[in-house]
Amino acid sequence: MADIITAAMIVIGDEILSGRTKDRNIGHLADVMTAIGIDLKEVRIVPDEEDEIVAAVNAVRSRYDYVFTSGGIGPTHDDITADSISKAFGVPCEYDDKAYAMMEAHYAKRGLEFTDARKRMARMPRGADHIDNPVSMAPGFRIGNVHVMAGVPSIFQAMLDNVVPTLRTGQKLLSTAIHCPFGEGVIGGPLAEIQKAHPDTIIGSYPKYLDGAFWTELVVRARTQEALDAAAEEVRAMVEALGPKAA
Amino acid sequence: MADIITAAMIVIGDEILSGRTKDRNIGHLADVMTAIGIDLKEVRIVPDEEDEIVAAVNAVRSRYDYVFTSGGIGPTHDDITADSISKAFGVPCEYDDKAYAMMEAHYAKRGLEFTDARKRMARMPRGADHIDNPVSMAPGFRIGNVHVMAGVPSIFQAMLDNVVPTLRTGQKLLSTAIHCPFGEGVIGGPLAEIQKAHPDTIIGSYPKYLDGAFWTELVVRARTQEALDAAAEEVRAMVEALGPKAA
Repeated sequence: MADIITAAMIVIGDEILSGRTKDRNIGHLADVMTAIGIDLKEVRIVPDEEDEIVAAVNAVRSRYDYVFTSGGIGPTHDDITADSISKAFGVPCEYDDKAYAMMEAHYAKRGLEFTDARKRMARMPRGADHIDNPVSMAPGFRIGNVHVMAGVPSIFQAMLDNVVPTLRTGQKLLSTAIHCPFGEGVIGGPLAEIQKAHPDTIIGSYPKYLDGAFWTELVVRARTQEALDAAAEEVRAMVEALGPKAA
Repeated sequence: MADIITAAMIVIGDEILSGRTKDRNIGHLADVMTAIGIDLKEVRIVPDEEDEIVAAVNAVRSRYDYVFTSGGIGPTHDDITADSISKAFGVPCEYDDKAYAMMEAHYAKRGLEFTDARKRMARMPRGADHIDNPVSMAPGFRIGNVHVMAGVPSIFQAMLDNVVPTLRTGQKLLSTAIHCPFGEGVIGGPLAEIQKAHPDTIIGSYPKYLDGAFWTELVVRARTQEALDAAAEEVRAMVEALGPKAA
């Protein structure tokens, strides 16, 4: 039995739900998780409302090995992620001495006032560890299996780079893509048979629509190269066999 | 009290969670909902697993006025949305006579076989209404407050265009954006004061990071023009007043 590690993501922010900002962190996290062998199983986008954030975090943190959040850790009044995560874990949200000192020095060095707003960014749940932010100093944090990161994509990515080496990774889900020039209506039947014959694989079929015609990207996924190759070979043979009939 | 209409979205598909496909429907739905005065309050991305789809649909359909799903309504074995929605509503999933006849004629006209796979696309929960698909015929459907649409963006968008006129819309949330050349650390304090003084508005602060410096997009939202203008004016005045100090 392969070691399966799972994760969920919570995207926090009214601006994503209003459409004003288009999320770019979900796709990035998904790519990174796939690359390191962690299965991203669920994503939720929630508004800047404490009850919603607390409920979402508590719903997923017991179900999956890891949780990653983006957004809401800045210095303004609508940045309520640190408070919400603290509430979810039932611990106080307070200034972290190390973060406070680090940020105080950072602003002093640049001749900038360490405003109350900036101080907000040094608050985190009691017992949390920092996630370093090489871009703009104010750290994210980890508490339990929940990793709290910024919503600005360049900072989210930099923080995630710092988190990845700390994660326990599973057996990578291998995958191969097979181009199929026919629509799903042609291949649906035989493809289902192949899936049935190869229960240790996940065969996905992704329709693409271009200039009035469908084509399909077929993706075979498996935990072992042997399982992957066996199913992929049958899928390729199916596409070839259909060639004359469907063309 | 303004009439508030709420919605949730469920994105169904392993390919989004694996990163192979980058979602383009969330942002589109968010834009459309905002434009017509419906508040998108939650989005969930779930895998192609029946239990997960059923649980997500049932979790959100009682909480919000409308639910929109994308993905999993094609002809292949991994397209299990119709079955899952039927299960969520406790009704059988069966061939819809009208959809079946329409699709049969469509394929006959094009000289294509009406395969078992294609027939799958005529299945929907008993009692569901069609959502027309002007792109590739196979319809989506509506049952109760749940609107089930395709994952292919061009088809999702075309189906949504057909759904929008059927929706009860609320009082549109008006918004205005104010460019702020300073980072959130500078404005966090005064901005929180303005938010406190204008509880009938939602003031969002969205940090942007470019070439080593932060700037901020400030967005004021309100249900009435008066409330919007009053708060926006104070935000603009705040930014101007900070000018010399923060520059």
